[in-house]
Amino acid sequence: MSEHKATGWPGIVCPTPLVDQLHITLAHGSGGQLTADLVRKLFLPAFNNEYLAPLGDQAVLPLSGVRVALTTDAFVVTPLFFPGGDIGKLAINGTVNDLAMSGARPLFIAAAFILEEGLAVDELSRIVESMRQAACEAGVQVVTGDTKVVERGKGDKVFITTTGLGVVDKPVVIAADQARPGDKVILSGTIGDHGIAILSQRENLQFEGAITSDTAALYTLVAAMLEASDQIHCLRDPTRGGVATTLNELAVASGVGVEIDEQRIPVKESVKGACEILGLDPLYVANEGKLIALVAADAAEAVVGAMRRHPLGREARIIGEAVAQHPGVVVLRTAVGGKRVLDVLRGEQLPRIC
Amino acid sequence: MSEHKATGWPGIVCPTPLVDQLHITLAHGSGGQLTADLVRKLFLPAFNNEYLAPLGDQAVLPLSGVRVALTTDAFVVTPLFFPGGDIGKLAINGTVNDLAMSGARPLFIAAAFILEEGLAVDELSRIVESMRQAACEAGVQVVTGDTKVVERGKGDKVFITTTGLGVVDKPVVIAADQARPGDKVILSGTIGDHGIAILSQRENLQFEGAITSDTAALYTLVAAMLEASDQIHCLRDPTRGGVATTLNELAVASGVGVEIDEQRIPVKESVKGACEILGLDPLYVANEGKLIALVAADAAEAVVGAMRRHPLGREARIIGEAVAQHPGVVVLRTAVGGKRVLDVLRGEQLPRIC
Repeated sequence: MSEHKATGWPGIVCPTPLVDQLHITLAHGSGGQLTADLVRKLFLPAFNNEYLAPLGDQAVLPLSGVRVALTTDAFVVTPLFFPGGDIGKLAINGTVNDLAMSGARPLFIAAAFILEEGLAVDELSRIVESMRQAACEAGVQVVTGDTKVVERGKGDKVFITTTGLGVVDKPVVIAADQARPGDKVILSGTIGDHGIAILSQRENLQFEGAITSDTAALYTLVAAMLEASDQIHCLRDPTRGGVATTLNELAVASGVGVEIDEQRIPVKESVKGACEILGLDPLYVANEGKLIALVAADAAEAVVGAMRRHPLGREARIIGEAVAQHPGVVVLRTAVGGKRVLDVLRGEQLPRIC
Repeated sequence: MSEHKATGWPGIVCPTPLVDQLHITLAHGSGGQLTADLVRKLFLPAFNNEYLAPLGDQAVLPLSGVRVALTTDAFVVTPLFFPGGDIGKLAINGTVNDLAMSGARPLFIAAAFILEEGLAVDELSRIVESMRQAACEAGVQVVTGDTKVVERGKGDKVFITTTGLGVVDKPVVIAADQARPGDKVILSGTIGDHGIAILSQRENLQFEGAITSDTAALYTLVAAMLEASDQIHCLRDPTRGGVATTLNELAVASGVGVEIDEQRIPVKESVKGACEILGLDPLYVANEGKLIALVAADAAEAVVGAMRRHPLGREARIIGEAVAQHPGVVVLRTAVGGKRVLDVLRGEQLPRIC
């Protein structure tokens, strides 16, 4: 993308504005192209430092000789309760997963609540109970927090920002820029479940076969993978923007091409059917309990084997590989033998999915 | 406060509900009694652990042999821009201060933005620039973040949750429960400036003499105090709920009484005048660049001296002391020689002050 605009005057160009639009749109929160623009043009220049620059879902920081991982996410999902989970479970699991994706052992959570005046205390209690359970299952402790209240009509019931702190015990460097040509692309299971569960609840749609969110804490799965191999180069959970956007981010950061096989990507029949009806591509739909790994080719089978022995990785498989050609571009080999470029998510597919 | 309600049936009591009201009110975000109720009855039972239980403004955590401090705060101040600062500056300074109040050296910040659809990108840019400056001045790096967008009418322009991470280098234990009878109560400067600055901007009030927010990063002041003495028992910045509420929290946590002299508490004439007109007590008005310390009596003069040599502590003074009598109760010795109990903030004085 050009950083300058021609003015019409010979030899004179103007810097493009920080963001190409004058106002924030829902698409700026999509996790796709406009979110990336906002981060690259507004946040990154202001806060530029070696930890932020890789634009990972977490920062790995040296702290008196210890490598700690820090990650934060605001959760604004609507509705608050959906099949398979709620905003509280999502807030804990999402933050645990962002820590795990750096190879960190998740330890502590900070939780900040923005409540809307008039929220039923009973709803808040259910959410907090759900966070308690999720934290317990993930082995993390909520150690500090904050509560603010805004006037009716200035918020939407509950927003929760969870920040996670963990320790990277092993001498591994797992980051978006670590993929190498030849690496295998591993996907841990079916895609699209979370996004479709939210959408069907929100729009009160009934699909054949219950569709529930896949929200889950992935640290124990990652730990099993790290036991199997130290050749794991990238890990990321394909949330907003889905598998397609995540693979693009990794391809760009590592300067590699990525090729994946459409027919190797598992999608539940119910999710596939819902996507067809709604005109959505499951490759762009959010997941909350899946991960993508780029792993050295000779370690890939061992890693997949370890994943399949874990309840959250039973359907793990190799779906493609990193290549030296077309760096920064993701190519989908379609079921009928064609190839097409799989771009990053443009615009807003499903707002407030997490 | 009783945890049970008489039912009218002999010998039978019912547990009180988690919170005494069925719906969240603005007062639950006041930082006063109802906020404390929400935390004690809803959050604490769910997440109970040794780090959360002291209900500090931060948690001090053991991390592979390093003592790290973690704190989080959601900022929902309105208006976004006010005399002396804006939401961005407040978010950085507020989080830096919560770290500093444990004696921690602030290092890293995570920032999560919840943007309302339609927000002017220019406003966001100004806020981000202000955060950049504040982070730079406080010596912290913004290392990770998140951006979400909610539909128009489901948020209020910008909410920012900042989470801070720091290291407690010195072998000190500074916490709300560390005050001892005989400790001197030290206040770093004038009170009420922030709250009145926000209120006058919000209500478009003009008072004699410009009233600006005191928002400032207090770590270097704390560092100077720690250089002067290792006998600092409690540190807290009196934000929501003001000096009165903060002193109550410390008195309760430490099981001591506190007595302070009204006439030793510095209030700017302009703030005093505004409070009189508005019917507010400056002791309950929020500050964003002040601190209260409880310090062993024989170290107090040295600490005050060190504070007065620092630009943010020039008006530091001893305003009272901790006593063995009336544990958990704060008493104000009035200018005319009387005594009255200084209670915690009840209800909501000024919503969305930070």
